[in-house]
Amino acid sequence: MAASCSASYSATLRVKLKKRPGAFAIVAACIGEKGGDIGEVLIVEENRQTVVREITYSAPSAECEHAIAREVGNLPGVELLDVYDCTFRCHEGGKISVTNKRALDSVDALSMAYTPGVARVCMAINDNPRQAFNYTIKSNTVAIVSDGTAVLGLGDIGPEAAMPVMEGKAMLFREFGGVEAFPICLDTKDPDEIIAIVKALAPTFGGINLEDISAPRCFVIEEKLKEMLSIPVFHDDQHGTAVVVLAALTNALKLTGKKIEDLKMVVVGIGAAGVACSKLLMQAGLRNIIGCDRKGAIYKGRIDNMNFAKEWYAENTNPECLKGELSDVIAGADLFLGLSGPKILSVDDLKKMNPKPIVFAMSNPVPEIMPEDAAPYVSVMATGRSDYPNQINNVLAFPGIFRGALDCRASAITEGMKIAAAEAIASLVLENELRPDYVIPSTFHPEVGKKVAAAVRQAAFADGVAAKSILPLATFAETGKF
Amino acid sequence: MAASCSASYSATLRVKLKKRPGAFAIVAACIGEKGGDIGEVLIVEENRQTVVREITYSAPSAECEHAIAREVGNLPGVELLDVYDCTFRCHEGGKISVTNKRALDSVDALSMAYTPGVARVCMAINDNPRQAFNYTIKSNTVAIVSDGTAVLGLGDIGPEAAMPVMEGKAMLFREFGGVEAFPICLDTKDPDEIIAIVKALAPTFGGINLEDISAPRCFVIEEKLKEMLSIPVFHDDQHGTAVVVLAALTNALKLTGKKIEDLKMVVVGIGAAGVACSKLLMQAGLRNIIGCDRKGAIYKGRIDNMNFAKEWYAENTNPECLKGELSDVIAGADLFLGLSGPKILSVDDLKKMNPKPIVFAMSNPVPEIMPEDAAPYVSVMATGRSDYPNQINNVLAFPGIFRGALDCRASAITEGMKIAAAEAIASLVLENELRPDYVIPSTFHPEVGKKVAAAVRQAAFADGVAAKSILPLATFAETGKF
Repeated sequence: MAASCSASYSATLRVKLKKRPGAFAIVAACIGEKGGDIGEVLIVEENRQTVVREITYSAPSAECEHAIAREVGNLPGVELLDVYDCTFRCHEGGKISVTNKRALDSVDALSMAYTPGVARVCMAINDNPRQAFNYTIKSNTVAIVSDGTAVLGLGDIGPEAAMPVMEGKAMLFREFGGVEAFPICLDTKDPDEIIAIVKALAPTFGGINLEDISAPRCFVIEEKLKEMLSIPVFHDDQHGTAVVVLAALTNALKLTGKKIEDLKMVVVGIGAAGVACSKLLMQAGLRNIIGCDRKGAIYKGRIDNMNFAKEWYAENTNPECLKGELSDVIAGADLFLGLSGPKILSVDDLKKMNPKPIVFAMSNPVPEIMPEDAAPYVSVMATGRSDYPNQINNVLAFPGIFRGALDCRASAITEGMKIAAAEAIASLVLENELRPDYVIPSTFHPEVGKKVAAAVRQAAFADGVAAKSILPLATFAETGKF
Repeated sequence: MAASCSASYSATLRVKLKKRPGAFAIVAACIGEKGGDIGEVLIVEENRQTVVREITYSAPSAECEHAIAREVGNLPGVELLDVYDCTFRCHEGGKISVTNKRALDSVDALSMAYTPGVARVCMAINDNPRQAFNYTIKSNTVAIVSDGTAVLGLGDIGPEAAMPVMEGKAMLFREFGGVEAFPICLDTKDPDEIIAIVKALAPTFGGINLEDISAPRCFVIEEKLKEMLSIPVFHDDQHGTAVVVLAALTNALKLTGKKIEDLKMVVVGIGAAGVACSKLLMQAGLRNIIGCDRKGAIYKGRIDNMNFAKEWYAENTNPECLKGELSDVIAGADLFLGLSGPKILSVDDLKKMNPKPIVFAMSNPVPEIMPEDAAPYVSVMATGRSDYPNQINNVLAFPGIFRGALDCRASAITEGMKIAAAEAIASLVLENELRPDYVIPSTFHPEVGKKVAAAVRQAAFADGVAAKSILPLATFAETGKF
């Protein structure tokens, strides 16, 4: 399969051309020959001799994108005035904005939003700190906290370089959940310091989304913060992934006629997502899990390349205490869950799996096995990519989960809330729509945020973590409302 | 002088009235008799028998505002359906919002703003962290950091209760400087911890505005952070106040024909603002300063009620080593600067001052001496209040100061930048406009933000703290722009 063009490798060329038939065709042909796909073409200036056009194209890679710009610049009769990369342009100056809900255009407006009026609002919160949910941004604002140690597949790129991802995450919160989120990238990797900082930040926020913090540090940080804070703390790389995997599995099981209790699952990659997916699937009934890392299967008593998270894993999975490589333990598996690296699963491995195997190969951008290679041998296949069917994408989960949690002022996000979210996502693929290449709804399914939020809210009440009541705006004498 | 009505004590009544002549007049009369000032009156529902109106009124105090609502509710023939306080309503759900600069409404938009496109932007910043100023919100975003220990005149009300003030501050940044600011209220009072936290937060922000942190802790926190960070750190309670005081003084001196070098100034209140004002005025040429706190004048060798900031003060002011109460040391002063509490300056004190005395009585809401009491004895009088002439309001300074600093990517805010800001503010009152009751421009002067920003930027270059060059968007091969 030829690599397909992606908007993430798109550029706009500003070119001056002679005004004669065929002049643009030469440019178009050059872009096409080099593998580029032409999008919008605008005329921005024109006179009797020349025309200035802006030509946007996408390419299959950054290299190809750049090569096309160079080639066009070398064409005879073409003057290349400017080039910009559309992705970089979309990040210029940052992608989110802090705006005022009301204008401050008069002394009266100032005296209500700021001094002296604000003092009475402060004192109402001082009297009852829960009034912060009524009179500050807390009720709808989440901190996206990262130390930049495990960003996408890029690894430890540091807090500054992590910001574009965290801003993007904030955009997803807003667009898909109506949640306002603010990125906080921390210049420290010390778990104790991160814990202390997030604890100190908590008064401002209604929830904490931990993001791209490397394992096993992320487990300690999340656990301690959950104990300390009375607002939800959620490490999306763990639980967002786990929720969407459970949703996809729920529907894949319907297609294959298997039961979760009977599955044998092999997980490759025992980091944040691998551990969290395993735990949530165990909650949902899965019993036979074998985890693998670079050193092969994780089993009770293994001593090589372990950490406290893998110790837990060894104690609680692999009931038959299997040892060996992935290609050994994959035999007889029903479900492969890949959260590791490119192309580590072979077709031979696939052939050893039980009939009707399910493969979730979520390494990005190159999956553990390419869907076109796996196709003849699998019942259901999913990846993390948007350009193949069945994209397992966290954005199906976290905006709705926080929406639901904030709406009921939940103090935590429980296992029950995650399972409810997974069920809500799975239910959006209707019985009559269910197919091997459609087990998970699209990111843009119009119902997903609302449906997940409603399910999560209900589960929060069932689990006793929702606020018993939304604090009323109290009496007029206190707050001016009765 | 009767207390005047303020929008900060305003409410809206929703009342159902019989539809007959005079029905509304009874309500209006009741509000007026009780001291309320009627604003907007809307008809929201109407039939042949009854009419529902929403009546907004302001009052001189919260007590009066509430009393009016009760009285109207007790009027015969009036059914009070609802009441709300306009100030509390304006804070419901918080006052600022985090919004997306672009829509995320397609797979293409997602692939540029988030994965996979975002990875190239991350790596460009990883290669050169200064690219964070080009491709993240850093270039225009300031953290407003408080621990809630010295909020307005309310004292240590804690981080949750401080949030409405910090959100209001963020609104002022946006409205008057086009700066995007985000409030961070910290659940710790430990200076070392606050320093560590702000240091760790720095990658996200282009500047740090410290706010409402009690003295003398604020001095240590600011000093250490200025040493550690390469972005501006500015404690507004100190320096914003000092800048506007210097601006007001500059114009007051023109009116009184005095020179700053010759002044004797008495400062009451040696906290954050008192120390900072003294330092900046010394920078500007003032030599004879006597500071007072509850225990009287601060002099070299005093041992009662001292701290390290006051020790500095004792070493560097009060050249004649005056001792005694305010009423002693005020004799022969040209300038009184009050940053303390209500009505601590008497008319007798005023009479002891040199001819043409200048009085800046900035205690809020009740000044050190009321302007109507001081009027016969002062040349120029200023307060912190918006309902008297010459309001010394920080909002004249900090939005423009940060605007200027961010625009040149300054690494610090120097004394030179503060003095330039003060001169810019003073210059907005034109020579032919200058009067004893107009030495400082209005908060809403349309030029103030721009003028201060331009002066600050120029001073930043002069002081060598501006970025030598704005980092270009680099080559197309790196970032897609050439």
